[in-house]
Amino acid sequence: MASNRVYLAVIGLGGVGAHLMPQVAALPAEIRPALVFVSRSRSNVVSDDYSPIEPSQAAELLASATSKSTLSTSDLATFLSRAPGRAVVVDCTSNQQIAESYPLFLSKGVSVITPNKKAFSGSLELWNNIQSALKQSGKRTLIYHESTVGAGLPVISTIKDLIATGDQVTKVEGVFSGTMSFLFNTFAPVDDTAEGKWSSIVAKAKEAGYTEPDPRDDLNGMDVARKCTILARLVGLQVAGPDSFPVESLIPKELESVGSANEFMEKLPQFDDSMEEYKVNAEKQGKVVRYVGNVDVLAGKVNVGLQMVEKGGPIASLKGSDNLICFYTKRYGSNPLVVQGAGAGGEVTAMGVTADLIKAIERLQ
Amino acid sequence: MASNRVYLAVIGLGGVGAHLMPQVAALPAEIRPALVFVSRSRSNVVSDDYSPIEPSQAAELLASATSKSTLSTSDLATFLSRAPGRAVVVDCTSNQQIAESYPLFLSKGVSVITPNKKAFSGSLELWNNIQSALKQSGKRTLIYHESTVGAGLPVISTIKDLIATGDQVTKVEGVFSGTMSFLFNTFAPVDDTAEGKWSSIVAKAKEAGYTEPDPRDDLNGMDVARKCTILARLVGLQVAGPDSFPVESLIPKELESVGSANEFMEKLPQFDDSMEEYKVNAEKQGKVVRYVGNVDVLAGKVNVGLQMVEKGGPIASLKGSDNLICFYTKRYGSNPLVVQGAGAGGEVTAMGVTADLIKAIERLQ
Repeated sequence: MASNRVYLAVIGLGGVGAHLMPQVAALPAEIRPALVFVSRSRSNVVSDDYSPIEPSQAAELLASATSKSTLSTSDLATFLSRAPGRAVVVDCTSNQQIAESYPLFLSKGVSVITPNKKAFSGSLELWNNIQSALKQSGKRTLIYHESTVGAGLPVISTIKDLIATGDQVTKVEGVFSGTMSFLFNTFAPVDDTAEGKWSSIVAKAKEAGYTEPDPRDDLNGMDVARKCTILARLVGLQVAGPDSFPVESLIPKELESVGSANEFMEKLPQFDDSMEEYKVNAEKQGKVVRYVGNVDVLAGKVNVGLQMVEKGGPIASLKGSDNLICFYTKRYGSNPLVVQGAGAGGEVTAMGVTADLIKAIERLQ
Repeated sequence: MASNRVYLAVIGLGGVGAHLMPQVAALPAEIRPALVFVSRSRSNVVSDDYSPIEPSQAAELLASATSKSTLSTSDLATFLSRAPGRAVVVDCTSNQQIAESYPLFLSKGVSVITPNKKAFSGSLELWNNIQSALKQSGKRTLIYHESTVGAGLPVISTIKDLIATGDQVTKVEGVFSGTMSFLFNTFAPVDDTAEGKWSSIVAKAKEAGYTEPDPRDDLNGMDVARKCTILARLVGLQVAGPDSFPVESLIPKELESVGSANEFMEKLPQFDDSMEEYKVNAEKQGKVVRYVGNVDVLAGKVNVGLQMVEKGGPIASLKGSDNLICFYTKRYGSNPLVVQGAGAGGEVTAMGVTADLIKAIERLQ
């Protein structure tokens, strides 16, 4: 007799994965999945007989795992497809290779849940392969990725609901990066209490851990471009990838070839004047500068970069490192449906994954 | 062989129900439910052999229905429980009696989807009866009611996701009434461009159809109190009902016993001074007046009424008749998760119902 329980594999036990474990452990018994595989970097723990691993002990078991060779994604897909019930793989990495294995998992009837943006914002070919694997594998094989945009905020689910119920999304616009949000809310606050030059704000954010170890990984705008690619594709635009539309990098051209993050930070003050000029120009128009992503569905265009926004508007009044996503649709008219809040961090990202997992289990059981 | 198709009954073909029909008709074939019952006021159309009624023809069929006696809810529950597949009843009325029949539907394995607030904001006994009917009827019997708060905005789903993933909701606060939102955004806008006394704004809103036919049905605050009751119960507070906590009515005491809406509107200008005074006091503190609902989870208290809010804050900067709901939680910290947008209107309310229906069908099929 096939069990009713859902079998779970988690790849990656870093920031998100580590927060996921206690959330999964706390699920009520009737929907709690059986964790049968966990991996981190080059070690893994497999429950060969599909008996559940305690989520709270996963990290410890991994640390003491004697076998240092992980299952290949192909072997993992086979292992999960042979589980005595429906299986779900959660990819908590940002790994391109694992993202490329989603069609394989799906084709074997294994559902995929992930905060990893790569599969949805990479090549259009991979996106299409995922969609066709999904179609062929039937309605009991799912792929959910709420946390790829805005972490735990209801962004992907909202856009899917709008479309599925027949609304016409005309534009999606917002602040999609917690780091960019923090930098510009500090650099050009609405109440004119700004302190410090652009480079010093970037430096402080780096010290506080609000940027990637190399701030250029935020300043190049690619994280925002990836998120806009995902949203654009969900509304039906055939976007070739995050490098197929205009993305304004905040890395000065002259510093693109600089070797280390430290050298970059040392030289960044030389370019403070141009950012200051942009800010002053915005102020003259009663506006503030923000880093905005825009998916113009009607025009079929995606755009990411600096924008002067009205002081009274929702984007200007963002606080801290919050994200804000405005959905303009035919039904909602001139006032968009807006979702706002923390869009990064291990705990809220894990929350989006857990919420996806609960929905998947409810459909699979 | 039991069919895989889901069978659908729709009670009420007014504002919401009428918009629901084209949305259901446009669902993709693989999830489109078979409409087998529609009713409006005292007429109904039943498909005795469970063959589907065309949603686009429902209104016309109803108008020409020869039988003017509707099935009782009890007979409808029996009829649906005998369908050759899982059945869902959608209650698009605001009827108390139909709300009281939800436990019966659930006990017969019929799922319930509704924008009708009555069942969730009425007596605690009915709420508890629904919860226990749900438990006893097993996991393939569902009750969804996204549109009871904020129409199609993701409010109920968000609060459920927060709780289900283990977050601790500490406070829910916001503007829950489109009418109240419009009145106060016009009466006390952030940019001090207000025109007209309170009573003239109410009168204009009434003329434009932004209020109930009798504006007192908005001004008494009960609609907001009902929504706060629902949210409070979802976060675990045992609220006895919308009259069990402080609700500030904007109907002056002296006008409570006035007979007609017209007489009320004629006498309302006599009370403009007190509203004006409140507004001026708020302005002196750099604030604006808004009608706010507040569920303080930690203190176990619910409160609905006038509040002076900061001009820079999200509640003050609302536009038109938008709703705004702030979820304060342990994970999201000092900056809440915010959902904002139109919270009333047939089309967006129907959208919330249709989105619920899709989710139910995905689980039931």
